Amino acid sequence: MNAKIEQFFARENPPTPCLVVDLDQVAGNYAQMKTMATWADIFYAVKANPAPQLIGCLAAAGSSFDAASPAEIEACLAAGVDPTRISFGNTVKKAKDIMWAAARGIELFAVDSEGEVDKLAANAPGARVFCRIAVANDGARWPLSRKFGCGPDEAIPLLERAKHAGLRPAGLSFHVGSQQTEAQRWCEGVNWCAALFDRARRAGIELDLVNIGGGFPVHYGDEQIPGMASMLETIGRAMLEMFGDAQPRVLMEPGRAIVGSAGVIRSEVVLVADRTYGLAQRWVYLDVGRYGGLAETEGEAIRYRLEVAGRKGPMKPSVVAGPTCDSHDVLYENILYDLPADIAPGDIVTLSDTGAYTTTYASVGFNGFAPLEEYYI
Amino acid sequence: MNAKIEQFFARENPPTPCLVVDLDQVAGNYAQMKTMATWADIFYAVKANPAPQLIGCLAAAGSSFDAASPAEIEACLAAGVDPTRISFGNTVKKAKDIMWAAARGIELFAVDSEGEVDKLAANAPGARVFCRIAVANDGARWPLSRKFGCGPDEAIPLLERAKHAGLRPAGLSFHVGSQQTEAQRWCEGVNWCAALFDRARRAGIELDLVNIGGGFPVHYGDEQIPGMASMLETIGRAMLEMFGDAQPRVLMEPGRAIVGSAGVIRSEVVLVADRTYGLAQRWVYLDVGRYGGLAETEGEAIRYRLEVAGRKGPMKPSVVAGPTCDSHDVLYENILYDLPADIAPGDIVTLSDTGAYTTTYASVGFNGFAPLEEYYI
Repeated sequence: MNAKIEQFFARENPPTPCLVVDLDQVAGNYAQMKTMATWADIFYAVKANPAPQLIGCLAAAGSSFDAASPAEIEACLAAGVDPTRISFGNTVKKAKDIMWAAARGIELFAVDSEGEVDKLAANAPGARVFCRIAVANDGARWPLSRKFGCGPDEAIPLLERAKHAGLRPAGLSFHVGSQQTEAQRWCEGVNWCAALFDRARRAGIELDLVNIGGGFPVHYGDEQIPGMASMLETIGRAMLEMFGDAQPRVLMEPGRAIVGSAGVIRSEVVLVADRTYGLAQRWVYLDVGRYGGLAETEGEAIRYRLEVAGRKGPMKPSVVAGPTCDSHDVLYENILYDLPADIAPGDIVTLSDTGAYTTTYASVGFNGFAPLEEYYI
Repeated sequence: MNAKIEQFFARENPPTPCLVVDLDQVAGNYAQMKTMATWADIFYAVKANPAPQLIGCLAAAGSSFDAASPAEIEACLAAGVDPTRISFGNTVKKAKDIMWAAARGIELFAVDSEGEVDKLAANAPGARVFCRIAVANDGARWPLSRKFGCGPDEAIPLLERAKHAGLRPAGLSFHVGSQQTEAQRWCEGVNWCAALFDRARRAGIELDLVNIGGGFPVHYGDEQIPGMASMLETIGRAMLEMFGDAQPRVLMEPGRAIVGSAGVIRSEVVLVADRTYGLAQRWVYLDVGRYGGLAETEGEAIRYRLEVAGRKGPMKPSVVAGPTCDSHDVLYENILYDLPADIAPGDIVTLSDTGAYTTTYASVGFNGFAPLEEYYI
């Protein structure tokens, strides 16, 4: 585990469950990604973790921001971020929220439907818009394909509609799905963008922005993922090959890749039970579960690395579950976890790489359990 | 729609999304259930909706309470409920929470494992315990079978262990799964309890409590469910047949059946988009979704009734989705909803029978969207 976080636990012994995020590591992850992708501007995906300390840390490091809602925009503005460095990237926005954002100086908005173009034209006249196209999501742990994005063939007509309505067509975006492990998916997106830039030009629209989205994977422990450097190099090479001398401005929206590895959740074992009814399995119940911040364990999509403090003995396959009276609050039961045979109530269990998509997923109080406590150090 | 709630909407025009609950209907549902099951004490399952107004209303009506956590116990005590009328029904409890509850006068606790018996003996000596057995959940929309409950054969040894450790074995409980539509499941549970009462007696333990749990269904609109009166009559008859003259005290833990039908969520259409990429389908995006209170739409388990205000024209099959940038935030896409062909952004959409399992499921702020506003009238 991250030494700084380990020291914090030893010194403060915070009540469980809680999340601790190392801001130095966040800044380090940002700097590393920036170095690996000099050809892109990083717009941190605020939805991954909107803590003010974190936004402040990234703003100081020079990041821009991708926001999904007025509250996320507000959090960036409160950290002193210039509105021109914020993208309102949700393609589903209320008219009043568009108007609110435009009044605060937000200039860049996502669209993927006629309805959204019309709302933007009416509520943020003159705004710059990029059109999100749907691309293949194969290889992603958390695919995004059906809900967002227009077909590539619809993109230029939408941007023409935007132009005629008084908006400024800026470019295109795509998302390859979250925790995507195949760089090829981004290359396909880049390929589409290059072809559509040509089509736009023939329609009299000059585009200059390609938003390659996020989805960059974090190594949670049980999967094979390529190194970030090699993935970004592959994508950068695709940009060079497809756009040649006419390189557009490139945006990328990492969230998980910036904050995921910088966080550790500390939890406590509440109960260990050898269930013999039906399948004979050992169940280990933690004080954090699907409704307390671990929503991404749905379908066992993300398999966090678990460590049990102070136990060295032989291991035993275990179902891992959360503390609520809800049967869906089971973290892992299809593929069991090897946990110490002598694990007992009160034992401390840490879950690594949990800085992203945890705190804000937590319910306000399902079964009366409080949301996840957060510490930024 | 409930006339009182309709008038509230017309008079107050509250911002969306929000939930409005009619406390008169809550009291009415309670009274009706009490009349239908004179043979049982109602322990309202606080987890279904822990709003103080609601607990106060039910306490005044004479209800007892099933709590899952210290916060839920605290909410009941704050409403003036006597601790002897509160059951700590979660079978997974922290030692410190058991001690806390015992110190506040809670006398009745659930167990289903040796580990929990030992924790209770150490932290609430002399407490009354009931053992939760696992029973068939076929027929439930939200089955509970694997996470909780011991096998029937383990129940008496567990209660013996409890007795030897200084606890007072009170009885047995079972849960047939949430939104259970087959009364037969409860009868099977009652059957097991009667057999185990005999076994307990032979082991020198006199039991006097049968907790038949909750799971009583609400009619959401698209399903065939039997009437509550006939279900309860069937279960009551099973109690008579199985226990004869030696009727134990019966507890039941309805949650959904008490508050579900008393609530309406008011939402607004944010975007309507004809998606042609992949499947050609119309998508209707609401300002409430899976992370904003509609978690029970997971797997389309609960299909709420949707009404669109002021639209009378022809209908069109639609995918229904929530407002966040998360692809899992889709309410219904496997079985489409018929919604007005001319539905448009800004239209008001009401979701009926949403009083239970909505508010506390809402995330604290996923994607920057606030939890569900609540009104109790």
